[in-house]
Amino acid sequence: MNQSIFGKQFTICTWGESHGPALGVVINGCPAGLSLDLSDIQKYLDRRKPGQSRYTTARKESDEAEILSGVFEGRTTGTPISIMVRNLDQRSRDYSNIMDTYRPGHADYTYDMKYGFRDYRGGGRSSGRETIGRVAAGAVAAKFLASLGIQITTYTKSIGPVSISKMDFSEIEKNALYMPDSEAAEKAAAYLEKCIAQQDSAGGVVECRITGVPAGLGEPVFGKLDAAFAAALMSIGSVKAVEVGDGCAVSAACGSSNNDPFISDGKTIQKATNHSGGILGGISDGDDIILRAHIKPTPSISQVQKTVHSDLTPADLVIQGRHDPVIVPRAVVVVESMAALVIADAVLCNMGAQLENVLSFYNTKP
Amino acid sequence: MNQSIFGKQFTICTWGESHGPALGVVINGCPAGLSLDLSDIQKYLDRRKPGQSRYTTARKESDEAEILSGVFEGRTTGTPISIMVRNLDQRSRDYSNIMDTYRPGHADYTYDMKYGFRDYRGGGRSSGRETIGRVAAGAVAAKFLASLGIQITTYTKSIGPVSISKMDFSEIEKNALYMPDSEAAEKAAAYLEKCIAQQDSAGGVVECRITGVPAGLGEPVFGKLDAAFAAALMSIGSVKAVEVGDGCAVSAACGSSNNDPFISDGKTIQKATNHSGGILGGISDGDDIILRAHIKPTPSISQVQKTVHSDLTPADLVIQGRHDPVIVPRAVVVVESMAALVIADAVLCNMGAQLENVLSFYNTKP
Amino acid sequence: MNQSIFGKQFTICTWGESHGPALGVVINGCPAGLSLDLSDIQKYLDRRKPGQSRYTTARKESDEAEILSGVFEGRTTGTPISIMVRNLDQRSRDYSNIMDTYRPGHADYTYDMKYGFRDYRGGGRSSGRETIGRVAAGAVAAKFLASLGIQITTYTKSIGPVSISKMDFSEIEKNALYMPDSEAAEKAAAYLEKCIAQQDSAGGVVECRITGVPAGLGEPVFGKLDAAFAAALMSIGSVKAVEVGDGCAVSAACGSSNNDPFISDGKTIQKATNHSGGILGGISDGDDIILRAHIKPTPSISQVQKTVHSDLTPADLVIQGRHDPVIVPRAVVVVESMAALVIADAVLCNMGAQLENVLSFYNTKP
Amino acid sequence: MNQSIFGKQFTICTWGESHGPALGVVINGCPAGLSLDLSDIQKYLDRRKPGQSRYTTARKESDEAEILSGVFEGRTTGTPISIMVRNLDQRSRDYSNIMDTYRPGHADYTYDMKYGFRDYRGGGRSSGRETIGRVAAGAVAAKFLASLGIQITTYTKSIGPVSISKMDFSEIEKNALYMPDSEAAEKAAAYLEKCIAQQDSAGGVVECRITGVPAGLGEPVFGKLDAAFAAALMSIGSVKAVEVGDGCAVSAACGSSNNDPFISDGKTIQKATNHSGGILGGISDGDDIILRAHIKPTPSISQVQKTVHSDLTPADLVIQGRHDPVIVPRAVVVVESMAALVIADAVLCNMGAQLENVLSFYNTKP
Repeated sequence: MNQSIFGKQFTICTWGESHGPALGVVINGCPAGLSLDLSDIQKYLDRRKPGQSRYTTARKESDEAEILSGVFEGRTTGTPISIMVRNLDQRSRDYSNIMDTYRPGHADYTYDMKYGFRDYRGGGRSSGRETIGRVAAGAVAAKFLASLGIQITTYTKSIGPVSISKMDFSEIEKNALYMPDSEAAEKAAAYLEKCIAQQDSAGGVVECRITGVPAGLGEPVFGKLDAAFAAALMSIGSVKAVEVGDGCAVSAACGSSNNDPFISDGKTIQKATNHSGGILGGISDGDDIILRAHIKPTPSISQVQKTVHSDLTPADLVIQGRHDPVIVPRAVVVVESMAALVIADAVLCNMGAQLENVLSFYNTKP
Repeated sequence: MNQSIFGKQFTICTWGESHGPALGVVINGCPAGLSLDLSDIQKYLDRRKPGQSRYTTARKESDEAEILSGVFEGRTTGTPISIMVRNLDQRSRDYSNIMDTYRPGHADYTYDMKYGFRDYRGGGRSSGRETIGRVAAGAVAAKFLASLGIQITTYTKSIGPVSISKMDFSEIEKNALYMPDSEAAEKAAAYLEKCIAQQDSAGGVVECRITGVPAGLGEPVFGKLDAAFAAALMSIGSVKAVEVGDGCAVSAACGSSNNDPFISDGKTIQKATNHSGGILGGISDGDDIILRAHIKPTPSISQVQKTVHSDLTPADLVIQGRHDPVIVPRAVVVVESMAALVIADAVLCNMGAQLENVLSFYNTKP
Repeated sequence: MNQSIFGKQFTICTWGESHGPALGVVINGCPAGLSLDLSDIQKYLDRRKPGQSRYTTARKESDEAEILSGVFEGRTTGTPISIMVRNLDQRSRDYSNIMDTYRPGHADYTYDMKYGFRDYRGGGRSSGRETIGRVAAGAVAAKFLASLGIQITTYTKSIGPVSISKMDFSEIEKNALYMPDSEAAEKAAAYLEKCIAQQDSAGGVVECRITGVPAGLGEPVFGKLDAAFAAALMSIGSVKAVEVGDGCAVSAACGSSNNDPFISDGKTIQKATNHSGGILGGISDGDDIILRAHIKPTPSISQVQKTVHSDLTPADLVIQGRHDPVIVPRAVVVVESMAALVIADAVLCNMGAQLENVLSFYNTKP
Repeated sequence: MNQSIFGKQFTICTWGESHGPALGVVINGCPAGLSLDLSDIQKYLDRRKPGQSRYTTARKESDEAEILSGVFEGRTTGTPISIMVRNLDQRSRDYSNIMDTYRPGHADYTYDMKYGFRDYRGGGRSSGRETIGRVAAGAVAAKFLASLGIQITTYTKSIGPVSISKMDFSEIEKNALYMPDSEAAEKAAAYLEKCIAQQDSAGGVVECRITGVPAGLGEPVFGKLDAAFAAALMSIGSVKAVEVGDGCAVSAACGSSNNDPFISDGKTIQKATNHSGGILGGISDGDDIILRAHIKPTPSISQVQKTVHSDLTPADLVIQGRHDPVIVPRAVVVVESMAALVIADAVLCNMGAQLENVLSFYNTKP
């Protein structure tokens, strides 16, 4: 419940609002000695940057990161890594139509109920720009994981009613929607044009596949790896459902088909199928981890909407400015970042699980 | 990631294995002065007790709770409430066929990978009996919430392919499957008979509706109320997907229909619809909270299953004894308990959100 | 601030009151594979048992522990270890003189202010019996540490005005006061006789020396090893000051004499002196760790004391029954237990500090 | 053990190194609606700024804070408050004499042991500049507490062998050493001149008195208010002992004199004396809270010191530049800040202690 802190050993603390001076993150517990420079982080931030296609907001932000601490001579020192991104596009717009009016589907009303007032400029802390800190930290976690051979591939599985029907990972970067299926991407683009024409918006599904995860990560009961993923993904604004492996489909399945038989080549143990999505009893089973986040349509639409003012009088709301007709493509890197953070934390938390390993760790340390 | 501790202010720490001497829970942070006796807890435990219908395991357990601390003269004292349930049915069965063999769909393999060995008797800590501590604590949380006017109704929404088509809450307690639709319950029972005949098992969906939650509970970003629910429900063994409000359906919806318009009668603010499931921006909006957990089919089935021994040789596994062909009905109270724990924690965490409230709290305290 | 949970990776959750049915502890995060049986725990509990000398309370308690979970076939499983001690001596005494009266030096008044009422039987949760959970857990931590070559020696340094003037560790177990100096022990015993005769009580100092701690344990800033020790020792009832190394004496010292020069035999680095008490910048320096806790005189004395009733009227209080004229000897094992818990936690938290070690851990794991 | 995060409800996360680009803090959980501007923070930072007297380092730093988030229209929003101070004086000195040499009394050796390498510029994260984040956050906590009528007065109690002999709080701000006794301040200044002449350094004691704290703050067992203070103060670099109330003196006292009798004027309950230092059983008793931190002499001295290089060869170390001969006066505001953070956290954690208060909170909330 600590609002802006996530993780146990590899932790992040994010901060910042849509129209404040800056946004950022402090990473605690990243192992010392990881080679890290700005380009590692910028690469991730660029994937969530606005203004990259006609399906994302026109807000002009370069989103350039600055590393303020925790890196010395190109390597992490083990102490907190502070990363900041200045907000540049804070031109003073006229917020008079929303400062006392509750936008449907947004957090305006709930923030007012919780805090008694709110920063109404662009959603304040509840803005999607909040994810900048997550992505900057996710870039660091992903680099750490890469050194362990753990890779994450994330993509758009569906937009509105249009789902992918093949998995060509080489396509992901080739279309503005990050779909591993060029035909589906074209159909989805057409669907989005229709949404734009109708002053409406679309949702979609982001899927994430993590390879190279050793068996044994995650903790029993409340520390289950899938529980951590569920919290991580559901904490992203607009996510309303999270699935692991076969996800919702398990409820209609039979045990005989849902169980994954174990097999062996005499050297390692594997599973013949992967309905479990790489997690059994909350602990990684060595197979690919598969996650899905269901994202609701952007609540900011250009249509006139019925709502109320804070003084309880009715309102006809027109949200000004141009907004993303769909946030799913920009959410891809956010989902990937949260997944990376969960795994990085689990990697560190797992090191003391067996006495034998603790003993050999301390005997072999110089 | 703390394996057996959940919550921030209202926290629980559970312990115990399927075939150890006992299982239990320690509750921290329950406000002092709550009237509490054994019957409050027993009522909840009885809802998850085995042996209540032919669809649940025949294991004989009375599951009688003992309160060991934290209650004095019938009221909670504010200090830890320790509750214990002794395991009675620990007859020494023959585990030779599973002690070195990995049951598909179970945590046997992953526990071995994590810890180097495992308590193989009935799944040890990964057994469904682990939820006894959750349910005992959930009973306390639910009683606390009831004093605030917060009520939770939980039921089976579907079993295998059979879904409810009406919502008659008075029916829930009248059928062994806890469905609010007697016809669906009959069809589901028929489906389960078929599963039993085929030595197979079924999954299903549990839904939870929480009424009376004040607007303003939950914290932004990582402390979102839905993130806490997602972690809470996904941490229950066999849950593979969690939905809030419209859940998965949002990904195919349009903003214009998914947004819930705010309305007012001049006294309070409400929403015309509840696609959000009572949570906006991670904070309760005063409407009913709606959650769903998708539960996989019981992995223990009587069919012969292909798997491997821990020495990597192939195995034809026959799991002995009788097992639940479906755990969904018994999971209903577990989902309710976890939901209660999340809300109880959010209620306490929220009290310091506004300076004005802190000031009046300390001025008005005697 | 979590009242009954301590630690981050190796955590404990204690529960129980002086006159409730039982007291106990749940240990989370103890590595799997540690050989553990009841005698390991009983040995520690026996060191804090009442009724062992005429300087400790006459309450009759066998304080026999039961291990309820987390141990299978003589080894820890990695899951929560639950340990319980039943309260036997709960005869119903007459508490009418204290149930509405605030005993000076006790927590009666502050518990009433905090919780609105209190369990007045023997102090309830604020009783010294609360430490049973700490000691049972400390026994487990100490066994874990012993396997790493880390040993803790704890003893009484002073009682009232009588301080030790030599350090003969072989003497510690030979006198009822756990002093490493037989002459001082005799003088202290004489002083205690005088206290008893005068219906008064005495305080004292417990010192703890930890050997074999590798350099590098502890975390910078708020996770400093000495900060953890300070919290751990100050959390013991009646402790009013905590010192590390030279402690209070440093404030009057000069830098030239307080600094410990580093020296080397060409193989390892050591310090010529140990004013730091084994901790520099919050991190262990490989030298012996030295801690001291200052314990106040037992507040329960037989003299008539001035105080007030809860209705604000004045009271002349006579505390009935026999009480420890000094709790210092029984606190020795409590200090040792808390010190063990701090080190055990630091050992586990430290394993992810260096990328190189994380990489080799995961490459070398089978 | 989370190295850079402190607190439970009112939490801070600090970051930054002595010679990195900047240092700062993120505050989580500060109630919304607190009036806050830069001057509130700058006032505190100025009290720890270097270069203010001949007894503090000549490093030129304006230490100007910037508020990056969490404040809107002059009031806190309830979301994270991020505060940053740029490092200006980072001229590239020659560190060749310390980069491979372990300075006695510093954390150079222990950081190398922990992390494998270190930022050797000015001590990196272990530098006293790390406290900038604490002080900026402490200023916010103190402002919050002031609105509740809680005031903290902090001062130098002794420097080297020179202790104060009176308590004239109006004197504190009048001398460079922050002593409430002008004569003692003169003697201490003379002592420091001697230290400077001898190329040596001095330690001292900082004392803190907190008034207006309501009874009932703090939690039993591990969440004791004094345990939190002990951790908070011991986590400040160079602190080697922490005392509460009579502190070390209690070990030689008798119960009859150490117990504080309760008295009443018929309206409130007070104590006739305050040996307890305002805390009984870990919970505030409504009296002034009194804390002391013992600070070691600055380890950086100009004398030649014996030490070793990291290659284990002996070294004669001369530390270049001018250093504080005493850090005690600059530590005064750091101690005050940590004390404020502990109380602010306890104020918020306490609000859910009684069911009755929770019920009235939610009934009276609009």
